[in-house]
Amino acid sequence: MPKVLITTIPFADKDRLPLEMLENSNIDYIINPLGRKLTEDDLAEMITDFDAIIAGTEEITSKVMDQATNLKMISRVGIGLDSVDLLAAKERGIKVSYTPDAPSPAVAELTFGLIFSLLRSIHLSNSQLHDGKWNRFFGRRLSEVTLGVIGIGRIGGRVLRRTKPFGTPKILVNDIDPSKRSELLDFKLDWVSKETIYKEADIITIHTPLTSATKNMIRKEHLLSMKKDAIIINTARGGIINEQDLYEVMKSGHLSGAAIDVFEKEPYDGNLHEIERCILTAHMGSMSNDCRTKMEIEATEEAIRFLTGKDLEREAPQEEYDVQSQGL
Amino acid sequence: MPKVLITTIPFADKDRLPLEMLENSNIDYIINPLGRKLTEDDLAEMITDFDAIIAGTEEITSKVMDQATNLKMISRVGIGLDSVDLLAAKERGIKVSYTPDAPSPAVAELTFGLIFSLLRSIHLSNSQLHDGKWNRFFGRRLSEVTLGVIGIGRIGGRVLRRTKPFGTPKILVNDIDPSKRSELLDFKLDWVSKETIYKEADIITIHTPLTSATKNMIRKEHLLSMKKDAIIINTARGGIINEQDLYEVMKSGHLSGAAIDVFEKEPYDGNLHEIERCILTAHMGSMSNDCRTKMEIEATEEAIRFLTGKDLEREAPQEEYDVQSQGL
Repeated sequence: MPKVLITTIPFADKDRLPLEMLENSNIDYIINPLGRKLTEDDLAEMITDFDAIIAGTEEITSKVMDQATNLKMISRVGIGLDSVDLLAAKERGIKVSYTPDAPSPAVAELTFGLIFSLLRSIHLSNSQLHDGKWNRFFGRRLSEVTLGVIGIGRIGGRVLRRTKPFGTPKILVNDIDPSKRSELLDFKLDWVSKETIYKEADIITIHTPLTSATKNMIRKEHLLSMKKDAIIINTARGGIINEQDLYEVMKSGHLSGAAIDVFEKEPYDGNLHEIERCILTAHMGSMSNDCRTKMEIEATEEAIRFLTGKDLEREAPQEEYDVQSQGL
Repeated sequence: MPKVLITTIPFADKDRLPLEMLENSNIDYIINPLGRKLTEDDLAEMITDFDAIIAGTEEITSKVMDQATNLKMISRVGIGLDSVDLLAAKERGIKVSYTPDAPSPAVAELTFGLIFSLLRSIHLSNSQLHDGKWNRFFGRRLSEVTLGVIGIGRIGGRVLRRTKPFGTPKILVNDIDPSKRSELLDFKLDWVSKETIYKEADIITIHTPLTSATKNMIRKEHLLSMKKDAIIINTARGGIINEQDLYEVMKSGHLSGAAIDVFEKEPYDGNLHEIERCILTAHMGSMSNDCRTKMEIEATEEAIRFLTGKDLEREAPQEEYDVQSQGL
């Protein structure tokens, strides 16, 4: 009987269907027994005799794979493949699949919640009123500001489309792939350099994958080049904005707000908690009931396909391997 | 030289134009010297020799008007006229104008911020992470829920229109004026009783004026008839939801969240601050730079028109007087 390790948690919390699918296919499974995000060492110790992983964002490195003598398949619940050493997997003949579309609507919608919270200081007025302090904050409407979107793929594109009924802000976009431009012909927007976005945007939201090109992409000098009252949002991947630099820049009084949903090390316990005007959320971009369930079902279906000898439908495409091999 | 008392604060904080307009028209003005919302007694004492008020939401009662021997005009910065005794004003020949359109986009946009904060528990994750606690909350997307809108005038209608790119939720609406139905023909929605909205909606948002018919409209029995995980939002007027009842119902564990921007007595210092899942904001619906400035300019223009003998353009319509005389 094939055995699957489900590392991502919570799993099947709102809908038991993925577990039933495994049971109906006579596949044994264990859900992450530690109840927290696994470290490289945790996973290396745990992985020994599993045939497949239904994985979250924990690091699946060559060190882990060296211990995984039976592992033949990794099925990622979600979009980013930065946590999986794709080249190490390929060398060992381990297949990798993912669910790139399912989480996008939920991430885009969380991004909007963060944009409006920051623009209207909902988080500040809420925490002050819970402390008995009444302070009416002035805010801005989306149509008053310049929105900068870095990365206009599945999620960034959805963010753009959802701005429409709020009155059109001035929109600046940047993407590593200039062909994306043709998908956005119905938008009035300016395709500019990242540096121009840093300098001119009032709200900057990041929707890139984590690669060697985007890791630490936004450092102190970039943050300081932003407007004093700019807002920056990261619902993409931890480490794209350098956390310590963001802390120091905000501590100094620069930037009117930030919202960070993703962290270099999760659970996060760094010093950004000192900055009241920085909204912190616990990697919840994909965590709407519908999207999370869809991701879990898609990743489980793919693991079952593999373990029952069927063709895969959501294999990581060659470009994901290229990103890792060429450091794109 | 005519004299204007500006009671609403902050005033001309982001844009000095309204004050320049008064100065250019040779009109004397004083901005609320107490720096807080005036009580009936404050205003009765202060009002004696002013010709006009550029007013916020403070109570302008017959008692106040009895002391206001020179008062000939009230120009409200904003939409609600519940704070002005229109019939007492009419008896004394005091004209009343308001700015019903200017704040609507800002209130609708704040309402969206509150909807997304509540649906995704942004406020809870943020306050917990600032306390060092990592807890990934499940949420819902707008398209997963049933949205109930009570009052579909200037603001409620705008809220409805802004749902479109988020995937259409099931929408239930109610309004005292059935003719509004014809304005919403391009929406798939169900026109139902308020009781049906209470029972069936996952998110209930209120966009009615405060009248004798809407004061305490939502009491304990209505709150308890809502789904256990329902969300209720009031960006309209304090007192439409009974605050003590909301406190008791949420304290008992009913309702998954609430957001209250308006209170019976402002500044608010009641017991809802004990309820972490109740977002509290300080009457900031209209407080976007653009809408607030527009409201201030419109109300100032109207006061200047009156004091320089020109025709008024934003007089309160007869239906506002009817609402107060007939208790509609």
